[in-house]
Amino acid sequence: MEAASPDAASSLALPQPYLLFLGDVTEENYAKTAFGLADWAPELCVGEWSLGETGVSTGLPRLSAAQAASAGAKSLLIGVANLGGVLPESWQAALVDAMEAGLDIVSGLHVRLGDVPALAETARKTGRKLIDIRVPPAEIPVGNGRKRTGKRLLTVGTDCALGKKYTALAIHRAFQRKGIAADFRATGQTGIMIAGGGIPMDAVVSDFESGAAEMLSPDNTAAHWDVIEGQGSLFNPSYAAVSLGLLHGSQPDVFIVCHDPTRKKIIGLDGFALPSIAEVIDLTVQLGRLTNPDIRCAGVSLNTSRLSFDEAQALFASEAASLGLPVADPVRGGAPFETLVNNCLK
Amino acid sequence: MEAASPDAASSLALPQPYLLFLGDVTEENYAKTAFGLADWAPELCVGEWSLGETGVSTGLPRLSAAQAASAGAKSLLIGVANLGGVLPESWQAALVDAMEAGLDIVSGLHVRLGDVPALAETARKTGRKLIDIRVPPAEIPVGNGRKRTGKRLLTVGTDCALGKKYTALAIHRAFQRKGIAADFRATGQTGIMIAGGGIPMDAVVSDFESGAAEMLSPDNTAAHWDVIEGQGSLFNPSYAAVSLGLLHGSQPDVFIVCHDPTRKKIIGLDGFALPSIAEVIDLTVQLGRLTNPDIRCAGVSLNTSRLSFDEAQALFASEAASLGLPVADPVRGGAPFETLVNNCLK
Repeated sequence: MEAASPDAASSLALPQPYLLFLGDVTEENYAKTAFGLADWAPELCVGEWSLGETGVSTGLPRLSAAQAASAGAKSLLIGVANLGGVLPESWQAALVDAMEAGLDIVSGLHVRLGDVPALAETARKTGRKLIDIRVPPAEIPVGNGRKRTGKRLLTVGTDCALGKKYTALAIHRAFQRKGIAADFRATGQTGIMIAGGGIPMDAVVSDFESGAAEMLSPDNTAAHWDVIEGQGSLFNPSYAAVSLGLLHGSQPDVFIVCHDPTRKKIIGLDGFALPSIAEVIDLTVQLGRLTNPDIRCAGVSLNTSRLSFDEAQALFASEAASLGLPVADPVRGGAPFETLVNNCLK
Repeated sequence: MEAASPDAASSLALPQPYLLFLGDVTEENYAKTAFGLADWAPELCVGEWSLGETGVSTGLPRLSAAQAASAGAKSLLIGVANLGGVLPESWQAALVDAMEAGLDIVSGLHVRLGDVPALAETARKTGRKLIDIRVPPAEIPVGNGRKRTGKRLLTVGTDCALGKKYTALAIHRAFQRKGIAADFRATGQTGIMIAGGGIPMDAVVSDFESGAAEMLSPDNTAAHWDVIEGQGSLFNPSYAAVSLGLLHGSQPDVFIVCHDPTRKKIIGLDGFALPSIAEVIDLTVQLGRLTNPDIRCAGVSLNTSRLSFDEAQALFASEAASLGLPVADPVRGGAPFETLVNNCLK
């Protein structure tokens, strides 16, 4: 995984490689940031550290902060997203140790690291940096809708949390394997940690939402692709504003709809049925035309992790027939995914 | 004008009356805050001040800061909303003068007054206050889309800056004249300055945009109306995210489309044609149905300030015939506006 190029706007230039910190969580679900890093950017991770025997491991070597620093780590990355985004007091000693061993701290928690007195004090004494991923760049312009040079792909979804980041990462890799110049443009905390840059779109003030998306994928050479990680859903009453600003500012030439075939309701909101894939395609084209009249859907990415191989292949075929578009699961890869990738480039 | 009720989330106690500051803008459109105050709350304004002969005036007496202070002014109110909400360096001397003359500074710009070193320094020396209207409440929840009790009206537009606030204020007054329980819910700086409460929707972090709109118009008695000031436009590539979050969170029963018949392009963005009124109606119904399946358009508010009386009346009639909806200019009032108000209540 290449880091995003320096023009990726975000003032973030994360100190890599990382030591992944798993805290004291005893369930993998809460450490999805660490697992995302270990899966998508293992070359950026020298090892992992947790507080005692928690039973949760990414499979990377277990290293203390001092061992990690000796192995070349530049920062300790908090790979845990616990409820409320707070920083438990029980973690503080480990983070102080890490700074004293020479590591910066990288966090995607809601709480600002500098607001934790013990960390602020240690940072001052050691000169180490406290880096909050959730802080957008300071100088975001208002969006202007100007057509930029280069090609753009955006992943959108029938809902949140069903594969938009994974799909964008997989398409970015597939483009690179084909020798196509491409950048993965990260819009959420895990994506930013993987890419080493990006903009946390959900933390941007709404007046600047489309402007932030414009900043994230600047003018480029004509054949270059920005593969942009989507956020939220136009049909989610909590987050549609984020999705629309990202769509308008990204002005994608091509989009991929991400969907979980086992999900029937919008996550966390039982009163809202999930939209159909066709509805998402239609609305994305309708609204996306404002800033790119040539926008088109190039395919559908299904999260088939709960289906068998045969069930998944049957679903790809039936959905492809009904939608008239390539349908694949990037995690399963194979011919369906190759077809989808090729259709993006048509 | 009655202040919004205390449940309107943001509680401000602004130092009044104001001296309206017009900066160096040479177009009325950019001074809409000053004009809104002069039109809707003249009793709160002792005069105006601008940097030289700009050709823009609200008609209030021209007073220096010292003259305004003698006349009883308590604050200088920045009546200008320039692109991006920055504070031009050329304004600083006038604001420093005002503080030295004894006035606080009230601003709705994106930039925080206290972040401008010359102003922070003068505030410290003189003891005057720097008041930023654009600071949203601290604890905004994520939107949940739950249907709330009471009735809601939202003004929407074919663009920014063409009458959404005026229309909401006029409809609120008309409702009150009919003895209907109603609150004006302010969403922008001028509205908040007039109402004394509200939420600056464009300053809310996008993840919380619909949640802020839900907070702004809470559950109420069945016959009560919240008349909500619209923001931006679903067709404006700079601000559509704000408009969509406000639409979803407001879950309006009724909306009014505001339009300026002389405007052909989206303001500040020459590459974008203005949408038609019919397009705005269709898209608002389509997207608004997510949180209120019964949403309907009750009429069209035209800004006919550049037309003669006869031209305006002819336009009301022709647009009403073509759209099948009441069409009026609230500033002109009369039978067309009465028809529009009655149609909201049907």
